[in-house]
Amino acid sequence: MSEPTIDCPRPLDPTDCVLLAHGEGGRASRRLLRAVVLEELHSVAPTALDDAASLGRLTGEVVVTTDSFVVTPLSFPGGDIGSLAVHGSVNDLAVCGARPGWLTLSLILEEGLPLAELRRVLRSVRRAAEACGVRIVAGDTKVVARGQCDRMFITVTAVGVRPEGVRLGIDLVRPGDAIVVSGPIAEHGMAVLVEREGLMLEGELRSDSAPVHEAVAALLEACPEVHFLRDPTRGGLAAVLHEVAEQTGLTIIIDEQSVPVAPAVRAACELLGLDPLHVACEGRFVAFVAEEAAERAVAVLRDGGWAAQAACIGRVERREGVGGGVLVRTLLGLERVLDEPTGAPLPRIC
Amino acid sequence: MSEPTIDCPRPLDPTDCVLLAHGEGGRASRRLLRAVVLEELHSVAPTALDDAASLGRLTGEVVVTTDSFVVTPLSFPGGDIGSLAVHGSVNDLAVCGARPGWLTLSLILEEGLPLAELRRVLRSVRRAAEACGVRIVAGDTKVVARGQCDRMFITVTAVGVRPEGVRLGIDLVRPGDAIVVSGPIAEHGMAVLVEREGLMLEGELRSDSAPVHEAVAALLEACPEVHFLRDPTRGGLAAVLHEVAEQTGLTIIIDEQSVPVAPAVRAACELLGLDPLHVACEGRFVAFVAEEAAERAVAVLRDGGWAAQAACIGRVERREGVGGGVLVRTLLGLERVLDEPTGAPLPRIC
Repeated sequence: MSEPTIDCPRPLDPTDCVLLAHGEGGRASRRLLRAVVLEELHSVAPTALDDAASLGRLTGEVVVTTDSFVVTPLSFPGGDIGSLAVHGSVNDLAVCGARPGWLTLSLILEEGLPLAELRRVLRSVRRAAEACGVRIVAGDTKVVARGQCDRMFITVTAVGVRPEGVRLGIDLVRPGDAIVVSGPIAEHGMAVLVEREGLMLEGELRSDSAPVHEAVAALLEACPEVHFLRDPTRGGLAAVLHEVAEQTGLTIIIDEQSVPVAPAVRAACELLGLDPLHVACEGRFVAFVAEEAAERAVAVLRDGGWAAQAACIGRVERREGVGGGVLVRTLLGLERVLDEPTGAPLPRIC
Repeated sequence: MSEPTIDCPRPLDPTDCVLLAHGEGGRASRRLLRAVVLEELHSVAPTALDDAASLGRLTGEVVVTTDSFVVTPLSFPGGDIGSLAVHGSVNDLAVCGARPGWLTLSLILEEGLPLAELRRVLRSVRRAAEACGVRIVAGDTKVVARGQCDRMFITVTAVGVRPEGVRLGIDLVRPGDAIVVSGPIAEHGMAVLVEREGLMLEGELRSDSAPVHEAVAALLEACPEVHFLRDPTRGGLAAVLHEVAEQTGLTIIIDEQSVPVAPAVRAACELLGLDPLHVACEGRFVAFVAEEAAERAVAVLRDGGWAAQAACIGRVERREGVGGGVLVRTLLGLERVLDEPTGAPLPRIC
């Protein structure tokens, strides 16, 4: 593999690694930026080195979101920290009804990280950004000594524009609202966990990491009755449902049978004693939709080719004397309380 | 000290520390966010928990910048990682001629970090944001296991608006331009280094960490002849001068005697074998100004009370046959080549 020479004061490791000098703002930093970062991001990033970037004049409401990504391992079936960082950020904007336009990319690198690995991640950032139609407009790179971080952390901030008339919010959720999920859950979390632990399981487990902004745009276009959207990442679907229940004081009832879960994911969850409702997705969203529009919402997602397994999985109710809980209706018609994720089985999943 | 109770599944350490569960998106994460992060940031942050934030409709060119902060130790004379993150980000916007308005704040925390320390840093973020007149609009918190990061890393993205008519850029630098620095250099880097190494030195060393956006606004108002601005952080003044020389192909000549350096900083640099020109500032800027406006620029900064020790330290020249170098004219009138920072004496200074 031919790596451009990195000019820096210490002798280069024969395997070409990140050095402390790459983080210190001098010549080595500039070379790393040009010969590695900007080269790999060429199609989605500017060629200049300015600290800050202009997005020009923007029409519409400007929306911003930020996330740090610390997933381990850096690569997993279905993605890596680079694509995940782009998808996660784009999706945070999408569920606000905003169209993603620009990303910033801040890297914290551990001394000794192979440049080949950094390049692989950056290529993955580029491909994901190309696919999402977003530009990387500004960035930063810091290097810390060996043992002071775990290989690589990425922080992405995404900026987008919310079109006129889009109004979404947890405060708009109403009794009677249907709860629609855009596809099978828990795939990202299980793929990372199984990869990290080196488990050998039946069936393929792949992260669902993917952008949802186009599916969201299609849904909002067809269903102005969508009240609230959220991407069920850390804490899984359960965390989203509990947040809504807690903030609205309403009761959420999920029909266990209707929640799409792939057989391999279900088997892995059973083996590891995890509830798929607690496990992260990275390419799904949950929509709270006015009752009368629920079928249309599912049809748009399925028939439009956005989400073949989109499903209505439950509804919001007002129950007297019971505020803010989440219930799961089982196959036998019994209702059990859904625990909120509080334990710590899944660190560093994103 | 009365810390709010953090409800989480593991027994709390009696000293109240960050736990892995605080990073997992469930109840513990929400409690940390509400009882610690939002409580400490109360005056500069929203009360809601949305993943993304609307900045409304913006008039003017939108400018964005991002930086990760990994400084060690977390606190140093004159500041800490919290105030530094705010100042650094505000300053990156300021030197683009943009008025800072909004920040995002993404935390990567090491399991076991005392909550009291997190609170101290967040209070410092709040005070700095108040002083700069910026709002913290969105954030994220990740927790990694002990030994997977060094206490705390902070990534800030700043969004601002550049007013009509402001035009600054390295491509506008011209032969004859004067180089103005807004105050004594190298104070931040030396303060961090001396604190980290536990050195006992004569005289007080304090970081110059401070916002420069108001001084910049005053300067641009009075001097439309400013061509380019930059904050000399990592790599110090030398890195800025080399970048300009390299990109313009022009020669930069600095008059060593005119560069303001505090006696304590000079003494510490001599002791440690460092050139103050290579050491980071965090509350200064360098301006490249058309020759005829240089005196006015210095006067505005000095007399306006923005920067009592602002000084003209050199000029840009076109020298035939010599492209892109930086020279220092010494007391004796000799010219020496200024090295670009390439060694690694100062990791994790910001």
